[in-house]
Amino acid sequence: MADTLAALRSLMSSHSPPLDALVVPSEDYHQSEYVSSRDKRREFVSGFTGSAGLALITINKALLWTDGRYFLQAAQQLSDQWKLMRIGEDPAVDVWMADNLPNNAAIGTDPWCVSIDTAQRWERAFAKKQQKLVQTSTNLIDEVWKNRPPLEINPANVHALEFAGRSVTDKLNDLRERLTQEKARGIIITTLDEVAWLYNIRGSDVSYCPVVHAFAIVTPTSAFFYVDQRKLSSEVSGYLKENGIEVREYSAVSADVSSLASNQLGPCAFKEAQSEVSGRTDIGSREDAAESIKTEAEDGDTIDLIWADPGSCCYALYSKLDSNRVLLKQSPLALAKALKNPIELDGLRKAHIRDGAAVVQYLVWLDKQMQENYGASGFFVEGETLAQKKQFRKGNKLTEVTVSDKLESFRASKEHFKGLSFPTISSVGPNAAIIHYSPQPDTCAELDADCIYLFDSGAQYLDGTTDITRTVHFGRPSAHEKACYTAVLKGHIALGNARFPNGTNGYALDILARVPLWKDGLDYRHGTGHGIGSYLNVHEGPHLISFRPHARNVPMQASMTVTDEPGYYEDGSFGIRLENVLVVNEADTKFNFGDKGYLSFEHITWAPYQTKLINLSLLTPEEIDWLNTYHSKCRDILAPYLDDAEMAWLKKATEPVCA
Amino acid sequence: MADTLAALRSLMSSHSPPLDALVVPSEDYHQSEYVSSRDKRREFVSGFTGSAGLALITINKALLWTDGRYFLQAAQQLSDQWKLMRIGEDPAVDVWMADNLPNNAAIGTDPWCVSIDTAQRWERAFAKKQQKLVQTSTNLIDEVWKNRPPLEINPANVHALEFAGRSVTDKLNDLRERLTQEKARGIIITTLDEVAWLYNIRGSDVSYCPVVHAFAIVTPTSAFFYVDQRKLSSEVSGYLKENGIEVREYSAVSADVSSLASNQLGPCAFKEAQSEVSGRTDIGSREDAAESIKTEAEDGDTIDLIWADPGSCCYALYSKLDSNRVLLKQSPLALAKALKNPIELDGLRKAHIRDGAAVVQYLVWLDKQMQENYGASGFFVEGETLAQKKQFRKGNKLTEVTVSDKLESFRASKEHFKGLSFPTISSVGPNAAIIHYSPQPDTCAELDADCIYLFDSGAQYLDGTTDITRTVHFGRPSAHEKACYTAVLKGHIALGNARFPNGTNGYALDILARVPLWKDGLDYRHGTGHGIGSYLNVHEGPHLISFRPHARNVPMQASMTVTDEPGYYEDGSFGIRLENVLVVNEADTKFNFGDKGYLSFEHITWAPYQTKLINLSLLTPEEIDWLNTYHSKCRDILAPYLDDAEMAWLKKATEPVCA
Repeated sequence: MADTLAALRSLMSSHSPPLDALVVPSEDYHQSEYVSSRDKRREFVSGFTGSAGLALITINKALLWTDGRYFLQAAQQLSDQWKLMRIGEDPAVDVWMADNLPNNAAIGTDPWCVSIDTAQRWERAFAKKQQKLVQTSTNLIDEVWKNRPPLEINPANVHALEFAGRSVTDKLNDLRERLTQEKARGIIITTLDEVAWLYNIRGSDVSYCPVVHAFAIVTPTSAFFYVDQRKLSSEVSGYLKENGIEVREYSAVSADVSSLASNQLGPCAFKEAQSEVSGRTDIGSREDAAESIKTEAEDGDTIDLIWADPGSCCYALYSKLDSNRVLLKQSPLALAKALKNPIELDGLRKAHIRDGAAVVQYLVWLDKQMQENYGASGFFVEGETLAQKKQFRKGNKLTEVTVSDKLESFRASKEHFKGLSFPTISSVGPNAAIIHYSPQPDTCAELDADCIYLFDSGAQYLDGTTDITRTVHFGRPSAHEKACYTAVLKGHIALGNARFPNGTNGYALDILARVPLWKDGLDYRHGTGHGIGSYLNVHEGPHLISFRPHARNVPMQASMTVTDEPGYYEDGSFGIRLENVLVVNEADTKFNFGDKGYLSFEHITWAPYQTKLINLSLLTPEEIDWLNTYHSKCRDILAPYLDDAEMAWLKKATEPVCA
Repeated sequence: MADTLAALRSLMSSHSPPLDALVVPSEDYHQSEYVSSRDKRREFVSGFTGSAGLALITINKALLWTDGRYFLQAAQQLSDQWKLMRIGEDPAVDVWMADNLPNNAAIGTDPWCVSIDTAQRWERAFAKKQQKLVQTSTNLIDEVWKNRPPLEINPANVHALEFAGRSVTDKLNDLRERLTQEKARGIIITTLDEVAWLYNIRGSDVSYCPVVHAFAIVTPTSAFFYVDQRKLSSEVSGYLKENGIEVREYSAVSADVSSLASNQLGPCAFKEAQSEVSGRTDIGSREDAAESIKTEAEDGDTIDLIWADPGSCCYALYSKLDSNRVLLKQSPLALAKALKNPIELDGLRKAHIRDGAAVVQYLVWLDKQMQENYGASGFFVEGETLAQKKQFRKGNKLTEVTVSDKLESFRASKEHFKGLSFPTISSVGPNAAIIHYSPQPDTCAELDADCIYLFDSGAQYLDGTTDITRTVHFGRPSAHEKACYTAVLKGHIALGNARFPNGTNGYALDILARVPLWKDGLDYRHGTGHGIGSYLNVHEGPHLISFRPHARNVPMQASMTVTDEPGYYEDGSFGIRLENVLVVNEADTKFNFGDKGYLSFEHITWAPYQTKLINLSLLTPEEIDWLNTYHSKCRDILAPYLDDAEMAWLKKATEPVCA
């Protein structure tokens, strides 16, 4: 690591201009949250493996910013050369740079790895000391990264209409309508899941995310797909062509954005020929539309903007555009993708049922293991662990990693399983307090019947992406642990049970999950919910439920998905989180004041809570009703997927409780 | 009214330049919410008497914008010449003007009656069609207002330290420290309650608000008070001089702001002499401070900004400043005033106890009247009204106005009473659905034992300002009315019972009061809480609890006051609102996660809820506990102020309930 920093500093000083600092964000060229191994530049340089963070290397300092989910993990993983900067507590990176770097400092970054918004925010902060953001022409990390993983050629696949629910033609028509509304003659799509969603294409270029490394440009008359063509089978190529999508090399996006800017980007090469052959009216009508669009919109304004999403489009591509003719606005695909169609919703519900069955099978198995190998009183009994059994049996040692492998195997046995949707968080005792803990085979903890065990996991199924967290205890939880579990559960129920008028955003809703915790002075340093994809990324926007300001930007809307996952974490001791996926539905309220229409949530995750961990006297009758109803549904819904022994266990786990 | 509009349009066309439109805001020169009768220009021109609204007169249209509290009232009061524009539903006034007025339109307004923020927002909206905001040199309304009420010369008074709790010297020291921090060499204070608070002066220039029409300018070496000097007794003049405050004529503020801008505004005339005579160190040290301040701050930056609050300082005064040297930032007095000192808090608590006693006496009296004169089953009994008694007895007719006069008389009998804090809302049945209903003697409704009765009222006492709402029924409320009352009560309790970490704002808290209503598709079109003054305005900022975006600007802080007043209104039928005043305290939570410190609310309003109106089966055990505890405190706290009969009634009203 010391070598890496030294090598980097040497590159920085020989750079033209010499760099006073180098910013290394976590993101790839597509501003992805999860990136492929060869794109984990920030991880490589800093040693910190969390999904979110930013490294800054100056002549004599190395700093890493990350958020509350990762404070503990980063503190453990960073070497002495690195200083941990806590987002929300320490100065933000742009403020720090402006305050601590000298006047006229040159601050380098790879412009492919930062968004327009980020780069412009930095530039504003730099202005007061005449500091300058320097776009490096190569990525300096790549130059010093000796064993950088090679490029993988993973095949791309067509995502069948029976799962996608909506054809590419329909999606392109909608998108082109939005372009006309916004007086844009083209849009650059850089987010991997937006490209995948728009073209109904899936891949495996990024672990956990079924996406392909690709860009797209769509104009009224054309649709381009920038991708390593070796990933495309003839079947996929044919499908793309059939849908009016022209494939170009991944690296061609750069030149094509320049062409687009100068209005030189022609229509798809095969367009005319195809239109003649197929006689498809949708292609024909698109052409006609293009004719008029190229000149004037109905109200006389010229249509000549290029649409780029400032939050996700990289600064490198933005720099090729005329900044006066750019429409900087969230990509319309973000919301379009978030509003699930009926087939996607149906698929998500089904995927979550199979997933819930896998979770129950896992709990049944784990309960048995914990009793047999660790002398635990078990999932149902609140008793002392038998001391003589605490020694694990030969060959049956359970670790955070081995049990999570078992969980994966239960999921893998289910229909349409394609892999996990994120690295499973499988955490015992103090590790559960590390919010995004990722156990490693050689360092992970052994299961412990006297500790809380938290697992947060999900899978990719062809018909939907899942994400669930449960927290359990196989021995005798302390009264404090039970009080905390109960407070988290109360928040989880309060949010999931809420009804609210259209227009309500996730910033307002967030507090519902926290109030029961706040009562005792407890809280959690993460948001309460995120959107989830349909066989796509496990985290997707544009909405979220959080105290962070951008949660105010998008109101909840019917047919969105969102998680409900409050928690509580006691450093060095334990962590609790409960998470279900919710679908936003129109609510059937008794009244409809203000004619706004009201919304409610539908839980689509099915797995029992551990009643042993609940202090029932702290629940209201309404909360107890909710719990009993949910548990009873769990039984009914999961029954077809469980064998007799599993079903017997589930019946016990879901027995009605009273205060 | 037709004459008025015609006369105005004639003035508009003879104006130089001719005006295409004239904007008439509700506010006076101080951006006050409540204004003196001669400042009710918007009311005069439109006929709409609500406290909030904006009139726009064009060549052929007259439009009035107001918010949800006033939709019903405005629709009733506006003549056919006027079109009601609903804020939140119809386009905002600036958008409407930009869209509907012609290119290059000249849009006039009195620059003394609009804030900097508002004027600049309009100008931005006007830019795209080259429209222009024209500052009229006189107020055109005043020119056509034949019977405009004359100027009143109401005496100003010193607000004694035993109530104010903090001396002018201390307040000025704090303010000057803030000026230094912000590199400002002067501040213009235009808000009436800020001037009154800073100088510990009260008056009666505006009904319900104990303020004096005045401006202030404070620099490191001087403090000016711009006021009609006929309002000052020699005692008050002496007090001001003693505190280093120089009195100047009200109209001199305009020239003095120009002098301040050009750095020509000298120190107070008597300053030097006084400092020699009294030898007071605080004056001396201020001078020393001024010496250094005039040149450079510690970090080398020049201190030469003029501080003006963009939300309250009028555009007329702003126009006299060099816009590059203005600090546009909320006045520091807004927050300083909101953070009550211990003596103010003590006074507020005491004032609310006396006020609560008056409310109970009123309820006892009203209960008796309703039974005797209207055959009502009464406050406690849920029974049919006796038909034969429905005829009122001679001389005993009760109307919304006569009963509210009685309420006032109970308050007037209390120590330190100085008047009401706002026009009492005393409303029967459908009138209660008019959120800010103000009954008039000749048109108001008679009390009705078969209808809900809502009263929202408060008083000014020397030691504090009060504001309370209760909703009652003296006959048999419908199940629907009870369900709605219960939902409102649940929201009222949920907010009042909340604990939350420092940093939480009123935008986040607002939802707590709404969620119980939303469950049934109910809501209310107003905010949930506002700050309240210490013998000052009943509405004060800078914090508020509301869904409106500016509620996010200021977090709740210990020692703030805020109301908790959710409601539900069914047009044409009934209205429900429950309101207590809360004090924000540091909470004694079991834990203190994140070391942020937690806050909670203390109810300081004391008057019973009507248990007859509660559907107890809808309350949680926790809510019932809260209600019983509150009622029991009511009894204990109000006992010293009530006679035996009143106390017997209160005991009955506050009997513990169970689900």
